[in-house]
Amino acid sequence: MAGNSFGEIFRITTFGESHGVALGVIIDGCPAGLAIDPAFIQSELERRKPGQSAIVTQRKEADEVEILSGIFENKTQGTPIALLIRNADQKSKDYEHIKDSYRPSHADFTYDAKYGTRDHRGGGRSSARETAARVAAAAIAKQLLQHYGIQIHAYVSKVGNIAVEKPYTELDLSQTEANIIRCPDPVIAEQMIEFIKVVKKNGDTVGGVITGVIKGVPAGLGEPVFDKLHADLAKAMMGINAAKGFEYGSGFAGTELLGSQHNDLFFSEEGAIRTRTNLSGGIQGGISNGMDIYFNVAFKPIATIMRDQESVDKDGNPAVVSGKGRHDPCVLPRAVPIIEAMAALTITDHLLRQRANKL
Amino acid sequence: MAGNSFGEIFRITTFGESHGVALGVIIDGCPAGLAIDPAFIQSELERRKPGQSAIVTQRKEADEVEILSGIFENKTQGTPIALLIRNADQKSKDYEHIKDSYRPSHADFTYDAKYGTRDHRGGGRSSARETAARVAAAAIAKQLLQHYGIQIHAYVSKVGNIAVEKPYTELDLSQTEANIIRCPDPVIAEQMIEFIKVVKKNGDTVGGVITGVIKGVPAGLGEPVFDKLHADLAKAMMGINAAKGFEYGSGFAGTELLGSQHNDLFFSEEGAIRTRTNLSGGIQGGISNGMDIYFNVAFKPIATIMRDQESVDKDGNPAVVSGKGRHDPCVLPRAVPIIEAMAALTITDHLLRQRANKL
Amino acid sequence: MAGNSFGEIFRITTFGESHGVALGVIIDGCPAGLAIDPAFIQSELERRKPGQSAIVTQRKEADEVEILSGIFENKTQGTPIALLIRNADQKSKDYEHIKDSYRPSHADFTYDAKYGTRDHRGGGRSSARETAARVAAAAIAKQLLQHYGIQIHAYVSKVGNIAVEKPYTELDLSQTEANIIRCPDPVIAEQMIEFIKVVKKNGDTVGGVITGVIKGVPAGLGEPVFDKLHADLAKAMMGINAAKGFEYGSGFAGTELLGSQHNDLFFSEEGAIRTRTNLSGGIQGGISNGMDIYFNVAFKPIATIMRDQESVDKDGNPAVVSGKGRHDPCVLPRAVPIIEAMAALTITDHLLRQRANKL
Amino acid sequence: MAGNSFGEIFRITTFGESHGVALGVIIDGCPAGLAIDPAFIQSELERRKPGQSAIVTQRKEADEVEILSGIFENKTQGTPIALLIRNADQKSKDYEHIKDSYRPSHADFTYDAKYGTRDHRGGGRSSARETAARVAAAAIAKQLLQHYGIQIHAYVSKVGNIAVEKPYTELDLSQTEANIIRCPDPVIAEQMIEFIKVVKKNGDTVGGVITGVIKGVPAGLGEPVFDKLHADLAKAMMGINAAKGFEYGSGFAGTELLGSQHNDLFFSEEGAIRTRTNLSGGIQGGISNGMDIYFNVAFKPIATIMRDQESVDKDGNPAVVSGKGRHDPCVLPRAVPIIEAMAALTITDHLLRQRANKL
Repeated sequence: MAGNSFGEIFRITTFGESHGVALGVIIDGCPAGLAIDPAFIQSELERRKPGQSAIVTQRKEADEVEILSGIFENKTQGTPIALLIRNADQKSKDYEHIKDSYRPSHADFTYDAKYGTRDHRGGGRSSARETAARVAAAAIAKQLLQHYGIQIHAYVSKVGNIAVEKPYTELDLSQTEANIIRCPDPVIAEQMIEFIKVVKKNGDTVGGVITGVIKGVPAGLGEPVFDKLHADLAKAMMGINAAKGFEYGSGFAGTELLGSQHNDLFFSEEGAIRTRTNLSGGIQGGISNGMDIYFNVAFKPIATIMRDQESVDKDGNPAVVSGKGRHDPCVLPRAVPIIEAMAALTITDHLLRQRANKL
Repeated sequence: MAGNSFGEIFRITTFGESHGVALGVIIDGCPAGLAIDPAFIQSELERRKPGQSAIVTQRKEADEVEILSGIFENKTQGTPIALLIRNADQKSKDYEHIKDSYRPSHADFTYDAKYGTRDHRGGGRSSARETAARVAAAAIAKQLLQHYGIQIHAYVSKVGNIAVEKPYTELDLSQTEANIIRCPDPVIAEQMIEFIKVVKKNGDTVGGVITGVIKGVPAGLGEPVFDKLHADLAKAMMGINAAKGFEYGSGFAGTELLGSQHNDLFFSEEGAIRTRTNLSGGIQGGISNGMDIYFNVAFKPIATIMRDQESVDKDGNPAVVSGKGRHDPCVLPRAVPIIEAMAALTITDHLLRQRANKL
Repeated sequence: MAGNSFGEIFRITTFGESHGVALGVIIDGCPAGLAIDPAFIQSELERRKPGQSAIVTQRKEADEVEILSGIFENKTQGTPIALLIRNADQKSKDYEHIKDSYRPSHADFTYDAKYGTRDHRGGGRSSARETAARVAAAAIAKQLLQHYGIQIHAYVSKVGNIAVEKPYTELDLSQTEANIIRCPDPVIAEQMIEFIKVVKKNGDTVGGVITGVIKGVPAGLGEPVFDKLHADLAKAMMGINAAKGFEYGSGFAGTELLGSQHNDLFFSEEGAIRTRTNLSGGIQGGISNGMDIYFNVAFKPIATIMRDQESVDKDGNPAVVSGKGRHDPCVLPRAVPIIEAMAALTITDHLLRQRANKL
Repeated sequence: MAGNSFGEIFRITTFGESHGVALGVIIDGCPAGLAIDPAFIQSELERRKPGQSAIVTQRKEADEVEILSGIFENKTQGTPIALLIRNADQKSKDYEHIKDSYRPSHADFTYDAKYGTRDHRGGGRSSARETAARVAAAAIAKQLLQHYGIQIHAYVSKVGNIAVEKPYTELDLSQTEANIIRCPDPVIAEQMIEFIKVVKKNGDTVGGVITGVIKGVPAGLGEPVFDKLHADLAKAMMGINAAKGFEYGSGFAGTELLGSQHNDLFFSEEGAIRTRTNLSGGIQGGISNGMDIYFNVAFKPIATIMRDQESVDKDGNPAVVSGKGRHDPCVLPRAVPIIEAMAALTITDHLLRQRANKL
């Protein structure tokens, strides 16, 4: 109800503010008997954490995870799994100047309007720091998906107007982690990085697009009518900070095609029913068909820029907001593991939901 | 859990198959004391029903709604409101030929994979006919929103590659119903209609885009973290048959902007805090800021074309599927009231959810 | 949220008022492929319907059920099952006299306090007539449970202070339907019936106890911590009109025992682990252990008596409420199928919930 | 779904095992702006914690609570409140002997049956130690209820067959904390304490009854049909370890009354509508009527006794289980704050739920 939970059966609830004591998550509904490698949770957090390269924020957080419950002798018990990440490098003073005024295109004004109060330090609960908890939870989900042979990929496919032109099927997705922008096309990756460095030097920020790919999903996941698999993926992705758009399969480009061009014809191959093209993006009628699921998520440029901006204070009086603190010039490289996380959580939940659909 | 419900407080559950006895919906959680005009429910259904113009399916359905409960002396009672629409013009024989084979890009194969059975007549539960129930429920929601001064608009902004170039702010949205394609730009509307007629003559189908606009939403609606207002709108829209993409505010185009170009600066006007631009699309940090909410939904071309297509039967053997039955060449005009319906349901739910956020 | 739904996976939502157009229910989450005998639904409704004997209300309702969706060729499809029961024999005029005043120990006052409005005709939504929808839904659940070898029994074990002294294990539960009070002990049954006839003649009403027994439940159902199997059974039973208490296993009497007397010792029998006694009532730590589940539900005397009673009108002025209309002198015989219904719904839901607990 | 959450709007999710790293809770949906006294959370935990008197377990736990999120400058922020309690005095070796065998009337066997695995140390998740998290969460709820003038009371009304004969209306509930059994009748309290000491000396345990009283609840709380206020109270209470029965108002005793004896007649007093008697227990039709809510909860004797008991191991072979560890001879005194906690959580949730029922 209050929006801090995700999933129906594999259900996570996150807590924590950017400059509070800690962040964390409870995973309720993880099946018992799953072998868990705690080091994998930590390594996933490393991929999201600040300070990992020159093109992201320089806030230093160890982001060390502590497992509080639900795992005994490295196996899940069917009981809630609680994961804790303490905050360390808060510089709350950096936010004193916006205590009473609203940063443009941030959540300062809307939180005040909603709750009548707000924790101004680092954006409080509205900070993308919250997503660390999701990544930790998804590291459990990914180990469950691995058990079922499902793999999640994501990569940066566009920064500003610098785009990877090749479809994901022509890229070597194992190369995504080979560069700091997380783009598997090394030539484009280099252009993106150079562009971000220029943007950063100007005290500005830039948006872009991340592509997600999910392989190995069995046919039959997704619940009509409202909980179509792509509808839940859309919600999952749009719940990530700074996301502005979602499309899957042929997406917005597919609106220009005719039905005769767009339909994916069925054929049999090695005993399985497959489609010759995959403009459906692996989902038909809201239910997975066994083909790859792929989608794009649009991210706006981050709102915090290192410039003075016109604004108002909480009483509506004119105010100038100056850019301070340590921030990302581009959200995309750190958003890659977050996209993967939300995809893993969505698929895991629907995998478990599907168990009740047949006698 | 099984995907047939939408909303947390203002919660609807729909039922019914395309060629079954009836469609319907239960609305649970509508506040008591709301005056209801039953004629408005019927008039909303007229806007969605088949057979209303030359560019939509010729199936004839009266779509007459019967109120079964929850309304007494034209006022809501706080109890569940059940609405029933009986099917009349089913021609189930039109579907005998696909009883055992899978129509390309339909949900035939995936329903079978999911449930191990399917009602092949008219697509059964996967048919867009189900959305009549949503439109009926939303006619209640719209009357509630009207009580709070909130208006919902939607219009066709693109068919194939014929697009309205003007932003919604430069259009007269009251003209949307003035033509059969439901596009408020009369010149573009004419081009769209002509194009659809050609497509229909060719036995083909075409996709497009619908733009939604919500005015009068107070600041403060939407629940961080996962139930951001735009995340729930995205899920709502992506749950509509044939939807392939969602974007709000600056959307995918905004990914190419710099932060200094994208930020919406605050100012005061008549005692209210507003923004000079509205690239945020009325939502910041997942919470409404009082500005207009606007968004686009991409629709693929409808899968049923009047041509023979290669496919397989349920045993994986090659089969040819021929186009039969009565179908829309373009989903867009009839999808306009459905977009409005899902927007109304989403905003109504969040309006009620917000009541518990302050002491 | 608004309280008209029950169950997490096998989830029902009921609608309808006592003197409205119809009652009904949507079952969402019933697995596909279950063979359904529609006649069984009807026969279950016959057991609950009014007018079936001299000791229940003489309202005449055919209670004919119409299946609107979700069942095709007598098999569930995995889609929502909607069941409709139209009202026929309303005599709304019988309630004109209480339009503006509150019947003692009814829900008239509290509905007004809650909603600011009420449908006074026959108690509106607060009438036990609503339970017809539950019985119809449970007739589907019972067919699912039968598939898994689980049987539900209930019988009247006490009326006023006339009680069956034998435990359920010494009764022939197949004799429950052999008399109009639904008590499997024929001697006690006769006493109960005679007592109710006297009470009825005096224009009065009387309470009692119903015992429920569930056999064949596999070990492992029930979710700790809050959704213990007996906690969900308690909620299910206490949600029935006029229920005042719930106990399972040793219940209130067990509070007087010592641990050394109360503990159920384990032993092995035919490869299964069983307990020598069953004071646990088939549930340990909130989870079924494979032994019989049994419980008692206390019912107060029905509030409508054929006498004048002191009360107030909606403005708080003194008023006299006279007993009118057709009413049951004792809720118990007609409550037996309702107890069974709620037990069936609870067990079915937990049966499906358990599927997600192991890899 | 997995049973570790309680409440719809004011929703708590607990985690932690008896001998794990920590226990804790997330409260999601607490309104913003509530002043919180952290010392009160601690003092509530003191009332539940082990080792506080001679008649409870001697396990020593500081039960110090750490607030991790959601409270800023001693005010709730509308964001999730996470509370953490680290375990300290685990003696897991005490449980080595039952690693592979099942203690009678414990959850050892059923957890194994459910999950295929279990944490045997101190009962793992099935331990009543989990309720510390509920008490901590309820300390927030109680501060919210205080804001609305609602008070929660509970006291031990029966131990074995030693019962308080007076109704709660004739007791001074402020004296409940004056003795270690938490019974406001000092004479009966002394008898109870003496009896428990004897039971303890014998290595045995004993059950009893706790009475709960809730004052100041406004009329209108509780949601028909399934979420009746007393149905949710029943579920809340039956979810407490060792609970076997629940009754409210006239309860099981009321089943012997006639309607003419049982009905609560309305009258007006100081502008409010009240009832002359209160056999309804403050709830009519599932909705509070403004009178006191009162109820009883039955507790069985604790299963762990200091004797050898016949049992089986996990392979079904005969085994003897010896009583070891530190345990309570009687759950009742420590269950008093737990009853209060569950009552506070239930009422708080319904208080917030009621906000959406009127325009």
